[in-house]
Amino acid sequence: MTQAVFKGIVAYPITPFRPEDGAVDTVALTALIDRLVQSGVHAMAPLGSTGENAYLSDIEWQTVAETSVRHIAKRVPVIVGISELTTQNAVRRAHFAQQIGADAVMVLPTSYWKLTEEEIFQHYAKIAAAIDLPIMVYNNPATSGVDMSPELMVRMNHDIDNVSMIKESSGDIQRMHRITQLSDGQIPFFNGSNPLALEAFAAGATGWCTAAPCLIPELTLQLYRAANAGDMQQARECFYKQLPLLQFILKGGLPKTIKAGLQLSGFDAGIPRSPVLPLDDAQREQLAQLLKALQT
Amino acid sequence: MTQAVFKGIVAYPITPFRPEDGAVDTVALTALIDRLVQSGVHAMAPLGSTGENAYLSDIEWQTVAETSVRHIAKRVPVIVGISELTTQNAVRRAHFAQQIGADAVMVLPTSYWKLTEEEIFQHYAKIAAAIDLPIMVYNNPATSGVDMSPELMVRMNHDIDNVSMIKESSGDIQRMHRITQLSDGQIPFFNGSNPLALEAFAAGATGWCTAAPCLIPELTLQLYRAANAGDMQQARECFYKQLPLLQFILKGGLPKTIKAGLQLSGFDAGIPRSPVLPLDDAQREQLAQLLKALQT
Amino acid sequence: MTQAVFKGIVAYPITPFRPEDGAVDTVALTALIDRLVQSGVHAMAPLGSTGENAYLSDIEWQTVAETSVRHIAKRVPVIVGISELTTQNAVRRAHFAQQIGADAVMVLPTSYWKLTEEEIFQHYAKIAAAIDLPIMVYNNPATSGVDMSPELMVRMNHDIDNVSMIKESSGDIQRMHRITQLSDGQIPFFNGSNPLALEAFAAGATGWCTAAPCLIPELTLQLYRAANAGDMQQARECFYKQLPLLQFILKGGLPKTIKAGLQLSGFDAGIPRSPVLPLDDAQREQLAQLLKALQT
Amino acid sequence: MTQAVFKGIVAYPITPFRPEDGAVDTVALTALIDRLVQSGVHAMAPLGSTGENAYLSDIEWQTVAETSVRHIAKRVPVIVGISELTTQNAVRRAHFAQQIGADAVMVLPTSYWKLTEEEIFQHYAKIAAAIDLPIMVYNNPATSGVDMSPELMVRMNHDIDNVSMIKESSGDIQRMHRITQLSDGQIPFFNGSNPLALEAFAAGATGWCTAAPCLIPELTLQLYRAANAGDMQQARECFYKQLPLLQFILKGGLPKTIKAGLQLSGFDAGIPRSPVLPLDDAQREQLAQLLKALQT
Repeated sequence: MTQAVFKGIVAYPITPFRPEDGAVDTVALTALIDRLVQSGVHAMAPLGSTGENAYLSDIEWQTVAETSVRHIAKRVPVIVGISELTTQNAVRRAHFAQQIGADAVMVLPTSYWKLTEEEIFQHYAKIAAAIDLPIMVYNNPATSGVDMSPELMVRMNHDIDNVSMIKESSGDIQRMHRITQLSDGQIPFFNGSNPLALEAFAAGATGWCTAAPCLIPELTLQLYRAANAGDMQQARECFYKQLPLLQFILKGGLPKTIKAGLQLSGFDAGIPRSPVLPLDDAQREQLAQLLKALQT
Repeated sequence: MTQAVFKGIVAYPITPFRPEDGAVDTVALTALIDRLVQSGVHAMAPLGSTGENAYLSDIEWQTVAETSVRHIAKRVPVIVGISELTTQNAVRRAHFAQQIGADAVMVLPTSYWKLTEEEIFQHYAKIAAAIDLPIMVYNNPATSGVDMSPELMVRMNHDIDNVSMIKESSGDIQRMHRITQLSDGQIPFFNGSNPLALEAFAAGATGWCTAAPCLIPELTLQLYRAANAGDMQQARECFYKQLPLLQFILKGGLPKTIKAGLQLSGFDAGIPRSPVLPLDDAQREQLAQLLKALQT
Repeated sequence: MTQAVFKGIVAYPITPFRPEDGAVDTVALTALIDRLVQSGVHAMAPLGSTGENAYLSDIEWQTVAETSVRHIAKRVPVIVGISELTTQNAVRRAHFAQQIGADAVMVLPTSYWKLTEEEIFQHYAKIAAAIDLPIMVYNNPATSGVDMSPELMVRMNHDIDNVSMIKESSGDIQRMHRITQLSDGQIPFFNGSNPLALEAFAAGATGWCTAAPCLIPELTLQLYRAANAGDMQQARECFYKQLPLLQFILKGGLPKTIKAGLQLSGFDAGIPRSPVLPLDDAQREQLAQLLKALQT
Repeated sequence: MTQAVFKGIVAYPITPFRPEDGAVDTVALTALIDRLVQSGVHAMAPLGSTGENAYLSDIEWQTVAETSVRHIAKRVPVIVGISELTTQNAVRRAHFAQQIGADAVMVLPTSYWKLTEEEIFQHYAKIAAAIDLPIMVYNNPATSGVDMSPELMVRMNHDIDNVSMIKESSGDIQRMHRITQLSDGQIPFFNGSNPLALEAFAAGATGWCTAAPCLIPELTLQLYRAANAGDMQQARECFYKQLPLLQFILKGGLPKTIKAGLQLSGFDAGIPRSPVLPLDDAQREQLAQLLKALQT
């Protein structure tokens, strides 16, 4: 059962780049993976939005995928992110993910020319036909330019074999209600909007897909544990405590804020790929204050 | 303390019109009030959006306000709704509300010409200066054309005497987070978006301003009790049970759907004022099904 | 033929209020009317958005309507603005406009509860059934909260007697294209978005509904004459000359900017009704500079 | 002077794919180029949105760029489209465009993570520093996820050498007014929104960037000639004649509608890349009717 495999805190590692030449830094990547696994997160999702998936070459993407899956080595389940403009490339990457032993793939359709529902459906259907892995449908209109309705996502979960999970990152809690209603609560949905973490759990989310564990793993886990125990009061307190940081990383963009936060903790993961710039000094100082407030 | 007075389920009665001539039906109004008070709701808010406030003449508004306050007779606290285009009219109505013994007023700024923050601030300040009652700042951009930021609303709560509560009906949970953060959780905020009832309580809302008790008082109270007890699981189950009805009344418009629902229950409260039309047959049938499903 | 009556520059006077008590200033109103008629504008539209229609009591509205129609005295055709929340009030005002001799009425549906197309249609149909005057359908979503599609407006022009003109103030030129296409160019449409004046004429607008003649009548007339002569170059030059002022009055809100501009020219028309505030000093200075630049 | 080089109708060829294997079809490409040059268009822009730029591999992009520039062979000026997610790739392609003899490059910033103004500025500055060709700043928020304000675009035109043209495809005529005002009419701007062609010329556009010449070159040229002659009446008639087709190709997506239209005219250019699907039968029939209506 897919449902049993992925749940709780699904951690999104950044992709470290070497300061000297900007190449993928597999040494830092494996170190970050160990750190996350040891923190107790329930699953790992390399090559998400946080992982600068979209900015990597084919070779780099393969390197990160393979390094991650091998180094995680079944300690936690792994879901590999795919966000390609053409179906052909998405199929190719999905196939690669299966070959290297990923437990699932998370597929974000991206667009230049707007896609119709039929086009999106066939995109998923072709990827699903090429692999045996479970597929997580990933809706993130702000980054991808594609906005999938709950109706479409639930239909794909019903009609396409392997499609068995939904990740909602639009930040609209009503979409989660709708997914629950349309599927009678049978399709596991994951929240991808950090400042919605509390309410998504209240609404029944199976898990929280987040880059925050790179910086504050224990707080994200505490929130999940309180929510899983049904304790609204404790979940609320834990949520409001970490909310300023969650707001900061959302607003600033995950790769640049998480990389800055890692560096502040003594872990150098390089900077994001141009044209994305690193945090400026004022932002870095603000982040340092936010992190400091959470350590006391 | 205002905070102690208003909390829990704040019920919004519709304004009944007589079928024969469309005039305000005070007999039906008092009957509806009794029904709501007996159901156990914690407070009453005549002349809200649900009460077709904006569609009443001055005399009618006064009639509804006075009839409501007198008939409620301190059995529960009463907050009277005011949504006027000019400050002068708003002040006049606020003064009237105080004279007849209302416990508070809820003020929605409405606009034809867009208002600046300074204009909104002065609108509230002038009303506050004219009365001694607590004022609830009411944000409902969809109906009023005015969208107040959490920053502005919190500032008015700090800077204007009497302004001591916030009602947020934008449906955006992040606004509630922001109000909590800006006020260190000290300003009581109320949720006015029905399909957000579960998550607003999770986020710390003091109460739920809703017309739903006109149709399903017990379910709204159950949700509040579960949330107040911090029981996320029970709150969630109770919420999803009533969600289809909450979605229906939001989408259809409260006066027309609540009046149709009352009629289906044998309580004739007339129809909304033209140009708003009553539910058509198909919608009424759908509503009947939704209500029937909740009674079993 | 309605089409022959209204065209060119349709001028929107503000409603002057007496500085001493805020009451309608009929002396200033008639003086402003004379000024506009003498400037050569082709028609007059009292009680539009500019005329603070929505902020007037019934008596005040009637006073402005009657004073305007009588004082214009057929020198130019008059179209009286109506924007009421209830159909009953709109019908009453339309009837009054007919009684006092208006040449047409301009009807803006306003909303608290969102209106369906059927509700909007019946609103117009009931008004049309009550009078014999031509009706201009007025779409201004930003102020009224009602957004009518070109399809609906053209349908009402076809299906409802008396409805024979469209005023489009959404600022979207594609709506004007659509109206032209749907009606084969047979329904006269008027532009109500000042910074779209040039392009609306290029797209075939019959007239420009504007408050700008209160301040710069000659420039608005020049633009119309160039456009009417089909001279794109001259129309463009004339448009860009007045564009900074048109942008300023749109952004600032017409009543407050036009009243400030009149005062700068020595004509005191009072200030807008609260909560709308008059221009502050910096804005007034900016307006003075803009007007000065146009006089050289 | 850049201004003298690009003006009028800038034609955007699609990128033909071979029906048998989906590879770039350079034979069809050169045939299409000849057809366009012979039609009299003033300039050519391979690898725009229409050219499925974003869906091509590096090798394919280079093939199309080089084939186009060589085959056009200075008969008209050529501007090559670049829309890369990373600055590094954009610089590489710009460099290639210069090497093969392009007259200019058109640069569209694309985004996964939202870009700040500083990030966009540096993206352009780095590309500009790497080449000597004139650069057209291209704003197309709907496809790229990046929305550049007129202020930013004009600033880049002033502050970055080589940046000397603006293409606005947001469809908002007010942006064109703003560009004109901010640059005193000195920066040539091009319209990239087909259904805005008439009004953009009225507002002073230097040219129209459009895929329509692939199907109706003569009508696009007629519109430009009428506009250039300042004849508003003739421009309007010519515009409304072709507007239904312009609306159809915008709504349907340029590659799929233009390729279908070419096929209807007996020119097989293949179909768009998956997940984009070709027109369905009903749409193709509708297109055939639209084209037929223009030939009579």
